[in-house]
Amino acid sequence: MAFPSDLEIARGAKLKPIQDIAGEMGLPAHLLEPYGRDVMKVGLGAIDELVDAPRAKYVLVSAITPTPLGEGKTTTTVGLGQGFKHLGHRATVAIRQPSMGPTLGIKGGAAGGGYSQVVPMELLNLHLTGDMHAVTAAHNLLAAMVDNHLHQGNALGLDVGEITWRRVLDMNDRSLRNIVVGLGAKADGVTRQTGFDITAASEVMAALALTTGLADLRERLGRIVVGYTTGGEPVTAEQLDTAGAMTVLLREAIKPNIMQTLENTPVLVHCGPFGNIATGNSSVVADLIGLRTGDYLVTEAGFGADMGAERFFNIKCRVSGEAPDAAVLVATVRALKAHSGKFRIVAGRPLPEDLLAENPDDVHAGAANLRKQIENIRMHGVSPVVAINAFPGDFASEHAVIREIAEEMGARVAVSTHFSDGGAGAVELAEAVAEAAEEKSEFQLLYPSSAPLREKIETIATRVYGADGVSYSPAARRQLDRFERNGFGELPICMAKTHLSISSDPSLLGAPTGWTLPVREVRASVGAGFVYPICGDMRTMPGLGASPAATRIDLDADGEIVGLS
Amino acid sequence: MAFPSDLEIARGAKLKPIQDIAGEMGLPAHLLEPYGRDVMKVGLGAIDELVDAPRAKYVLVSAITPTPLGEGKTTTTVGLGQGFKHLGHRATVAIRQPSMGPTLGIKGGAAGGGYSQVVPMELLNLHLTGDMHAVTAAHNLLAAMVDNHLHQGNALGLDVGEITWRRVLDMNDRSLRNIVVGLGAKADGVTRQTGFDITAASEVMAALALTTGLADLRERLGRIVVGYTTGGEPVTAEQLDTAGAMTVLLREAIKPNIMQTLENTPVLVHCGPFGNIATGNSSVVADLIGLRTGDYLVTEAGFGADMGAERFFNIKCRVSGEAPDAAVLVATVRALKAHSGKFRIVAGRPLPEDLLAENPDDVHAGAANLRKQIENIRMHGVSPVVAINAFPGDFASEHAVIREIAEEMGARVAVSTHFSDGGAGAVELAEAVAEAAEEKSEFQLLYPSSAPLREKIETIATRVYGADGVSYSPAARRQLDRFERNGFGELPICMAKTHLSISSDPSLLGAPTGWTLPVREVRASVGAGFVYPICGDMRTMPGLGASPAATRIDLDADGEIVGLS
Repeated sequence: MAFPSDLEIARGAKLKPIQDIAGEMGLPAHLLEPYGRDVMKVGLGAIDELVDAPRAKYVLVSAITPTPLGEGKTTTTVGLGQGFKHLGHRATVAIRQPSMGPTLGIKGGAAGGGYSQVVPMELLNLHLTGDMHAVTAAHNLLAAMVDNHLHQGNALGLDVGEITWRRVLDMNDRSLRNIVVGLGAKADGVTRQTGFDITAASEVMAALALTTGLADLRERLGRIVVGYTTGGEPVTAEQLDTAGAMTVLLREAIKPNIMQTLENTPVLVHCGPFGNIATGNSSVVADLIGLRTGDYLVTEAGFGADMGAERFFNIKCRVSGEAPDAAVLVATVRALKAHSGKFRIVAGRPLPEDLLAENPDDVHAGAANLRKQIENIRMHGVSPVVAINAFPGDFASEHAVIREIAEEMGARVAVSTHFSDGGAGAVELAEAVAEAAEEKSEFQLLYPSSAPLREKIETIATRVYGADGVSYSPAARRQLDRFERNGFGELPICMAKTHLSISSDPSLLGAPTGWTLPVREVRASVGAGFVYPICGDMRTMPGLGASPAATRIDLDADGEIVGLS
Repeated sequence: MAFPSDLEIARGAKLKPIQDIAGEMGLPAHLLEPYGRDVMKVGLGAIDELVDAPRAKYVLVSAITPTPLGEGKTTTTVGLGQGFKHLGHRATVAIRQPSMGPTLGIKGGAAGGGYSQVVPMELLNLHLTGDMHAVTAAHNLLAAMVDNHLHQGNALGLDVGEITWRRVLDMNDRSLRNIVVGLGAKADGVTRQTGFDITAASEVMAALALTTGLADLRERLGRIVVGYTTGGEPVTAEQLDTAGAMTVLLREAIKPNIMQTLENTPVLVHCGPFGNIATGNSSVVADLIGLRTGDYLVTEAGFGADMGAERFFNIKCRVSGEAPDAAVLVATVRALKAHSGKFRIVAGRPLPEDLLAENPDDVHAGAANLRKQIENIRMHGVSPVVAINAFPGDFASEHAVIREIAEEMGARVAVSTHFSDGGAGAVELAEAVAEAAEEKSEFQLLYPSSAPLREKIETIATRVYGADGVSYSPAARRQLDRFERNGFGELPICMAKTHLSISSDPSLLGAPTGWTLPVREVRASVGAGFVYPICGDMRTMPGLGASPAATRIDLDADGEIVGLS
């Protein structure tokens, strides 16, 4: 019998009433608002009201550098959350809201998989409670206000060539990357070149993910820089009198969404900032609430540990003031084999035959990446746990190699079969995480906020990425100088680089050394609260493929969704 | 003491639990889904499940040709709904969902006003349950699929110069009216000129408003024409394999939203198609449900009776198969005076001094418009009731003139002070409507679907608008011929003309005669199900003014919204 599809498994789930899930989390009923039958929102009042509840152990789920297929980080996050229940512990899971564009494009949804899923997956993957759309609206309101300001006479003296604020849509739409607006007659606005990004790439999304409350969000939105005057001075959303209305548009979106896993583990779904040019982490407020709702809060960070975990530590925890107690590094046999450099894995194509054969030596050959990512966790004072995300075709001999590498590095390690077995398959992992979290936390930020921007960039590049140093383009140098002058020098760094290598070159696998990080350009998300150096081509608006997922999504004769994965 | 603001009145409202409102409507609990505390959605299963419930009297609220300020149609709709309760009747109100763009722009919200409002007004005016955003997503998915089709090789042979499908956003953003997309490199799509409309102008919105169920919606979306091949053949959403995914994106948006008035009268809020290029009516499904939930269903149609009511009769009722029992014509002293042609009323400027003075003769001088609109109701076999929407500065002598004109025409008439007095002020109106609805309905469509397109256009122009005839541009002639050839000839007509005159010239007040309707262009919303001749400049993407409402909307120190009206 074939293994059932994610959708088939999800359809068979026995969901608990969502108010019961929220009740088990200890959330006060007066802060809960239902959205449909299976989702609730929880008001931010929970942060204060639960301040005396015992604090959960704070567990980050990260990964080694993934292949283009991804290594099952969300699935492991969900599986681990379910696994704790089998040990008699109460756990809550925190994940990002998936972007709808890729769901309709190539990628499929982001609800986990197999017997470790967040349900109902169709709600998670499509619209959910509309938070993503609220971000789109708030972002595009500011864009309309910018162009209206130009149209009405440009009293602030915006340099039309230095407007950095684009528009967003939650859609994979390559044709909108580069556009000219304001064509037509004089009444149709000022002509200029701009473009659309996907909503996940919006600074408003990043601000929402990093805010600690509504008043803080209002301030962050006011600080958003939309462009510069001809004199080089930043112009903000506050100066355009738009931050108040943007905040009003986000007053529901700021509340985390409560869902559940297939095994009724509570899940907080909130925000979905891009992993390349933004933090790739779910929201601070969801974590602050989740930390008071059980014994463990399992939260996920996007991409490998050099990307998501580094930002989790140095941006998200810097804002929240919370220290993680353990970090899981998801590793797979195929990813370690890929880091040997012997195989080429392309999304949408079958895996190479010889990668699927039993070959522990290939796993060994890719060990450097795992070692370096363990080190990256440990340099922040956090206990690493290697989670071997087991695939049906894996060989025990290959798992043994991963175990050996982890143990050589002094890291805990466990094989997890949560995809096939649900929480029961994650019990060994949950035990290892529980042990790691018992160790005294020695969490430390990698750099102080007060360090100059270049020093912060160089610290991340050399210590986390293993680069020899950093080279800046002339433009990047000018931008860094300008940001320091404008008072943005205290912001942390969110490095925009490929997630397919620890380096900035996606073709360099393992743990590359002897290279220099090239910073082509530097941008500032002043409202969200970080500076992001661009190290490579960063695509902020995906396209659709030759056969988009949307062509297969439909309703069957019973009105049930088909084709969503 | 000053009359309190709409927001102050709304804040003081004693809302009933929304499930109690739904319960009073007799809606089965298993079809209800809460969205937050004060809104529910009702599943379309209600149409079948309530088929044996007594049918309500079906009351349309329309108006004489309004001034640019609007004459209080929504306020009257809400007030009348409230008024029935004072007579011991159960009424449900059906209105459109307001577009967020104008709420953030110049217009303010659309929740009614004074003591006749839908509450909570901030939910109605901002996002509501996300239906508008779902329409945006479904619409723009199709746009992305069109441009992706071009990018992937254009197998269907779309003529790039004949693509009619644009993109939409629920935002007032003039800079997006005319744009060039697909700039950049080859990977960034095919370069072509296009633009954005406001979401209310989306054909998807019109289709959602006119559909009778999910399977019907799936078919309508499949029929949407996105453009033409170089050979002149229409290309549809079905051919682009996108209609299924669009329907999936709309599977929650198809369910009407339940809210309440200040006096706890149930309100169905659903869909907001534009009043100029689309029907300007709330949804068929909301009315089909609402007709089984009480003694009266009071439903509103946008603009004057020549526009909204004509489309309500000939498009909406043609689809639903339901016959209205009475139609209210909202009239105001200021609008009748304006139809005298002696005054110039401009939105955002104070009313002319002499318009505010007592002058029954000026009211008399504007009587032709009211007479013609009464006739327009009656030619559909429906009993008209003139509602004099009383303003605080009105004079009894002026109300008496309106009463006299209506009675001369054999129409019922009532003064309504619902704005100041709530439902108690609408009791006289409710009594008149109840009487009118007791008359045997002789509802008839103005033209059969089988008539040729030109005949339908000419019937509306001559009989409803009072034109001598219709003139077609050469382009309009070609388009009409093409539509007949393509099999779209059976569709009803949705005339796109100004709402500020019964004619196509906004400067012609009263009931103009001796003119010809110029049809410049003809378009087809094949999915929504109508052909729309363009008779004048139709703006489908508003702009922001010098001082947009968004600049005044904010949160106060207690987190309460301010500046929303």
